[in-house]
Amino acid sequence: MTNTYKNVYIENTATIAGIYEHEGPLAKYFDKTYTKDLYFGEKSWEKAEIKLLKDTISLILDKTNKKDSDVNLIISGDLQNQIASSDYAIREFDIPFLGIYNACATSSEAMIIGATFIENKSAKNCIVSTVSHNTSAEKQYRNPTEYGTPKPETATFTTTGGAALLLTNKRTKISITASTVGKIIDKGVKDVNHMGAVMAPAAADTIYKHLKDLDRNPDYYDLIITGDLGEYGKKILVNYLKKVYKLDISKNYDDCGTMIYNTKKQAVLAGGSGPSCSALTLCSYILKEMQEGRLKKVLYVPTGALFSPTMYFQKESLPAIAHAVSLEVAE
Amino acid sequence: MTNTYKNVYIENTATIAGIYEHEGPLAKYFDKTYTKDLYFGEKSWEKAEIKLLKDTISLILDKTNKKDSDVNLIISGDLQNQIASSDYAIREFDIPFLGIYNACATSSEAMIIGATFIENKSAKNCIVSTVSHNTSAEKQYRNPTEYGTPKPETATFTTTGGAALLLTNKRTKISITASTVGKIIDKGVKDVNHMGAVMAPAAADTIYKHLKDLDRNPDYYDLIITGDLGEYGKKILVNYLKKVYKLDISKNYDDCGTMIYNTKKQAVLAGGSGPSCSALTLCSYILKEMQEGRLKKVLYVPTGALFSPTMYFQKESLPAIAHAVSLEVAE
Repeated sequence: MTNTYKNVYIENTATIAGIYEHEGPLAKYFDKTYTKDLYFGEKSWEKAEIKLLKDTISLILDKTNKKDSDVNLIISGDLQNQIASSDYAIREFDIPFLGIYNACATSSEAMIIGATFIENKSAKNCIVSTVSHNTSAEKQYRNPTEYGTPKPETATFTTTGGAALLLTNKRTKISITASTVGKIIDKGVKDVNHMGAVMAPAAADTIYKHLKDLDRNPDYYDLIITGDLGEYGKKILVNYLKKVYKLDISKNYDDCGTMIYNTKKQAVLAGGSGPSCSALTLCSYILKEMQEGRLKKVLYVPTGALFSPTMYFQKESLPAIAHAVSLEVAE
Repeated sequence: MTNTYKNVYIENTATIAGIYEHEGPLAKYFDKTYTKDLYFGEKSWEKAEIKLLKDTISLILDKTNKKDSDVNLIISGDLQNQIASSDYAIREFDIPFLGIYNACATSSEAMIIGATFIENKSAKNCIVSTVSHNTSAEKQYRNPTEYGTPKPETATFTTTGGAALLLTNKRTKISITASTVGKIIDKGVKDVNHMGAVMAPAAADTIYKHLKDLDRNPDYYDLIITGDLGEYGKKILVNYLKKVYKLDISKNYDDCGTMIYNTKKQAVLAGGSGPSCSALTLCSYILKEMQEGRLKKVLYVPTGALFSPTMYFQKESLPAIAHAVSLEVAE
C-alpha cells in the first residue's frame, strides 16, 4: 500500500549509541555515545535499554525545545517482549502513546503511522522512536552472550542505540513524501543466523511495489537503503531484485547493517541488526547528508524478521516484512 | 489526543470464541465457537491461537465477500511475544500489515490507526484484528495451567477468541466518530493478579480526557464500556472517576470482562481479560445492539497492562494504558 504526503516534515532527530557503534564509521554523527559498558549505570541489560530510550526521548525534546505537553503523540517499538523498553521508557513521559511491533522494521512503521496522523491533521507533531541493545536482544532471542555460543559469518550483531525523530506539519528542509506498507513474506527459511536471507525477499517485494506504484525507476533515488540485511543479505537482495523483478539497484544501494560497522575490522560478522541499526544510521549520517545537500532523495527500507523464539522452537520458518519511506530534500 | 472522524464506518465483524466464552452469556452472538478443546486440531496452544486468528480473518473476508487484494491494510496485535499470533496468521494473507502492541488495549489502538488511514484517504478499507488464547497466555505470562497455581479472586481469566472488524470509507449504519489515544499511567501497583487495579487509573484518565476534549458529559453515551477491568477494577474505576475527576459514570457503564462471562457461575474469578475479551464483546453483542438500535452511542475503552514478565521479575511496577473509540449509529 503506497501513499504520498504533502505536509510531513522531519524537525529534528536524536541518537544515542553504545560502544561498538562508537568504534564504527558513523561515530562522529551520533549525538551521544555511552561507552563505559553496556549497563549505563543500570542493574540489568533490559533496564539499560529502557534508559537508552528514555534518554533518547529526553534528548529529542531538548533538541527541539519542547515539553511533553507540546508533543501530540509518540509511536515506539523495540525488540523486547511486550515492547517493554518502549512501555517502561515512555511511562516517564506525559505523551499519548501507540506501541508497535514489526521487529527491525519498527522505525519505518512508526514513521508511516506518524506521517498519516500528521497528514490527516490528527496530530501536529509526533515523536517516533525505537531502541535496541546488543546483550538484552541476544539473551532474549538466542543465548546469553556469556555462553560464548559460536555463530556463522552470516549472523548479524544487534546494535545498541536509541533513535528518535520529531515529525511535524511545519515546513523543514526534509520531508516524508511517500511510503509503502509491506506484506509479510515467508520463503521458508529457518536459519536464525541468516536474517539477511530471511528478509531480502520482503525488502525486494516492498521496493518493487513502491517503485511500481509511484511509476519510478530505482535511479529516482540518490540512495536506496535497507535496514539490516548485512553483507550476505545485501547481495541476495541485489540479485533477487534483478532476477525476479528485473530491477537493478546496484548503483545506488546500501544497507545500514554494513554502514554502521566496519564489517572487515569489527567483530560483528555480517553487520548490524536490530531496529536501532537502521534508525541510528538514518537519524545520524543519512539525514546529515540530506541536510547538507549531498543526498536529495532517499528511499529508507528497514527490514524486520517477524519470528518468535517460541515458534522457531516449534519448527516454524521465519516470516519477514519491510516498509519503505521516501525522504526528500525540499526544493 | 482526541480526534474526530467523518468518513469511517464499520462494514462488518467476525468473531470466533472458545469453550468458556461459549458457556458465557454472549455465546449466541459469536459467529463461531470452537468447543471441542483448546487445541483446535493444532499441536500447541500457540499454534491454536494462530489458527484462531487466521480463521477469524478468513471469516471477515468471507462475510464481506472480499479477496485479499480487495483489502488495503491489516492492523493486528496480540499477547504473544513478538505478536507471533498476528505475524504467523497474517503471513497467510497477501495484505499489507502493520503490527501493534498495547496488550489488551490492542483493538482500540488498531481501530484508531485504521480510522486515521481511512479518514486521510490513505486506505479505503482496513481489517483490524486481535486474538488471545487462555492457556498460551497463562503459559507465557504466569505459569502453565497444569501447575494448578491458585489465584486470588481479583485475578482475571484470559478469553480465548479472535475478533476482526472491517473498517471502510463507505457509509454503513455504524460509524467511528471520535477517538482518544491514552497515555501510559503507572500508579506503582505490582500485583499481577489484580490487573483491574493496575488499569483503572489509565481508563479513568482516558475517559476524562475524551469527555473533556469533546466537551461531553458521560450521559452523551448510552454506554461506556471498558475492556477487562473485571468485577473489582470496575468498582475502582467508578469510584476513582467520581473522586478524582468528579465524573459519575455509574448509570451507563459496564466492563467487557464482566459481560463476556457469568462471573458468579463460571470459574473465571473477577472476569475476562486479554485483547479478545473486549474485541469479542464489541464485535458480537455491542454492535448487534447498535445495529438493532437499542444502543446508539457507545464509548469503547479497552484497557491494557503494559507489563512484561521480565520487568516484573526485576521488581518493576505495572504500567497501563487505555484508548477510547466513540461509535455511533448514523442518524
